[in-house]
Amino acid sequence: MTDLLLLPGDGIGPEVTAQVRRVVSALAPDLKVEERLFGGASYDAHGTPLTDEALATAKASRAVLMGAVGGPQWAGVPRDKRPEAGLLALRAGMEVFANLRPALCFQPLADASSLKREVVEGLDFMIVRELTGGIYFGSPRFIEDLPGGGKRAVDTQVYTTAEIERVARVAFELARGRRNKVTSAEKSNVMDSGLLWRQVVTDLHARDYADVELEHILADNAAMQIVKNPKQFDVMVTDNLFGDILSDISAQLTGSLGMLPSAALGVAGKPGLYEPIHGSAPDIAGQCLANPLAAILSFEMALRWSLDRTDLADTLFAAVNKALETGARTRDLGGALTTVQMGDAVLAAL
Amino acid sequence: MTDLLLLPGDGIGPEVTAQVRRVVSALAPDLKVEERLFGGASYDAHGTPLTDEALATAKASRAVLMGAVGGPQWAGVPRDKRPEAGLLALRAGMEVFANLRPALCFQPLADASSLKREVVEGLDFMIVRELTGGIYFGSPRFIEDLPGGGKRAVDTQVYTTAEIERVARVAFELARGRRNKVTSAEKSNVMDSGLLWRQVVTDLHARDYADVELEHILADNAAMQIVKNPKQFDVMVTDNLFGDILSDISAQLTGSLGMLPSAALGVAGKPGLYEPIHGSAPDIAGQCLANPLAAILSFEMALRWSLDRTDLADTLFAAVNKALETGARTRDLGGALTTVQMGDAVLAAL
Ligand SMILES: CC(C)[C@H](C(=O)O)[C@@H](O)C(=O)O
Ligand SMILES: CC(C)[C@H](C(=O)O)[C@@H](O)C(=O)O
Repeated sequence: MTDLLLLPGDGIGPEVTAQVRRVVSALAPDLKVEERLFGGASYDAHGTPLTDEALATAKASRAVLMGAVGGPQWAGVPRDKRPEAGLLALRAGMEVFANLRPALCFQPLADASSLKREVVEGLDFMIVRELTGGIYFGSPRFIEDLPGGGKRAVDTQVYTTAEIERVARVAFELARGRRNKVTSAEKSNVMDSGLLWRQVVTDLHARDYADVELEHILADNAAMQIVKNPKQFDVMVTDNLFGDILSDISAQLTGSLGMLPSAALGVAGKPGLYEPIHGSAPDIAGQCLANPLAAILSFEMALRWSLDRTDLADTLFAAVNKALETGARTRDLGGALTTVQMGDAVLAAL
Repeated sequence: MTDLLLLPGDGIGPEVTAQVRRVVSALAPDLKVEERLFGGASYDAHGTPLTDEALATAKASRAVLMGAVGGPQWAGVPRDKRPEAGLLALRAGMEVFANLRPALCFQPLADASSLKREVVEGLDFMIVRELTGGIYFGSPRFIEDLPGGGKRAVDTQVYTTAEIERVARVAFELARGRRNKVTSAEKSNVMDSGLLWRQVVTDLHARDYADVELEHILADNAAMQIVKNPKQFDVMVTDNLFGDILSDISAQLTGSLGMLPSAALGVAGKPGLYEPIHGSAPDIAGQCLANPLAAILSFEMALRWSLDRTDLADTLFAAVNKALETGARTRDLGGALTTVQMGDAVLAAL
């Protein structure tokens, strides 16, 4: 069985994933690693952003680590063959319904943020985003011609009790190992799916998690509060679309997107999907300028959540922090290290 | 004909609206002002958050100024009778499809933000939010029981070419009077309505506004960029749901929600709807602690956009700035003035 499937993907994906490979060799040489094309790279080679074989290999691995997908060269490709469609198909195919997106402030970087130091220093907040439902996958969805001219586009947001419950459960379980507080965000004042969301989370809380503090917040207010005072939050659970936006705001709080990993988890025992939050960054691709830490920390999450090696995860996290403390900085952090040199710094700290 | 219909509404709404009344008397005593119950207050008196008579009066006025709606005492009221339903019905009934939400940094308050001074100082950015379409109003919308137990909730996002075009037109027109740049935000990578949105804005731009700079951005990236570097934007146009969230982030940038007005406009010649961005703030309602400046600046927008009194609008804006410069601060700004004393400060500066 493959332990770790690497999907380098497009843009800076291959560069940052190469540094993960080096870390794996140094830290966990026993892991069986494989690699497949994904996204635009797979489309160019195979005519599809995710081949059946790659998806099957992903589902048969213990963990999957994705680099990044997309780029301007695939803008003209039909929507269902675009790199992003491959990512959505991978998430759905692996059934990784709970997307864990940490917003962490690394102490040596507390001044890199657009927010004041005191607002973000020590920040450790986790967004749990529902990842395989909602408006991303609901039907009907179409664009039609109107009789009098012009068009009409429709998207559908759908959520069931079961979908909401399983992702909320992940949030409550996580909170128990942290500061024991869950904030659930929706627009129950205007959306029926928001009403159901609030009801299901409230019921599950009363039934199984009454020991965890639960707070409900409207998604617009959540966005505001994240900017105003992010340290008030511990774990925030929300739907696919709100989670997309709220987790991006949270990622921005700490100043460098190049630092932040994510994990997408399905039912226990099934493989998790790990990806850096940053995109494919076509503007700097191939120049060895990208920060590999988000990808390396995605591997750290894989060790923790899928590979049962918390010990190695702790070692790796400490090494990343040490590399930062000794002043290792890629360009996004205001430094001059190349992607490979930042990999060197982590390996040296290991 | 009524010039200005006041809908004080709930919570701090009546307190801040009372200060608007004082400003109107001092600045434009010739205006014919009326007042109606609205939101929870109307529900308590009439069993509905918006009576037919109030809506008819609103449509027959030149401008409508709303205080705030909602509060915990109406949480148990059926959804279609809740204060928020009254607000949605008012927006739809008045057909005010373009919601102008400025994010302004008042120089004397540049340090009040959670963002660094240099990130927000001099900020003057406008979000144009579509206000009468999208997932707020699309059908079908329902919660149904599933055969095997549990429920399923559905909301529908719908946009037509005409709806997108008319709000984009407002954004382009506005930009021409400002820094000549429009940023259009959607999720065209995952939503069909986003695809249509991008197409319609692109076509309109080519046809009628090629002199304005147009940029497209994904809504998640927009949220991130607003936090990172808001001064890169001039006018941002987006749909109802994204606009709800993005305008709340923008409002938070400048540190005090108590300062920010908004305008909702329909077709030329029809009345506009003006409201402070802050909510009903039940926690401080009735204590004379609320900042009336957002409501007063909403009247400033009404003078500008509906009442054809740009001269008075300029005078009022200068008076608010002067009051701030002389140190007038309510509690939300770190001061100790009451609502009435802040009203006094503006009147003194007039
Ligand atoms: C690439 C895109 C489809 C994706 C999303 O919207 O989910 C991205 O923004 C993300 O958050 O992982
Ligand atoms: C009160 C609520 C229905 C409203 C909305 O979601 O539009 C509010 O958040 C706003 O932005 O004016």
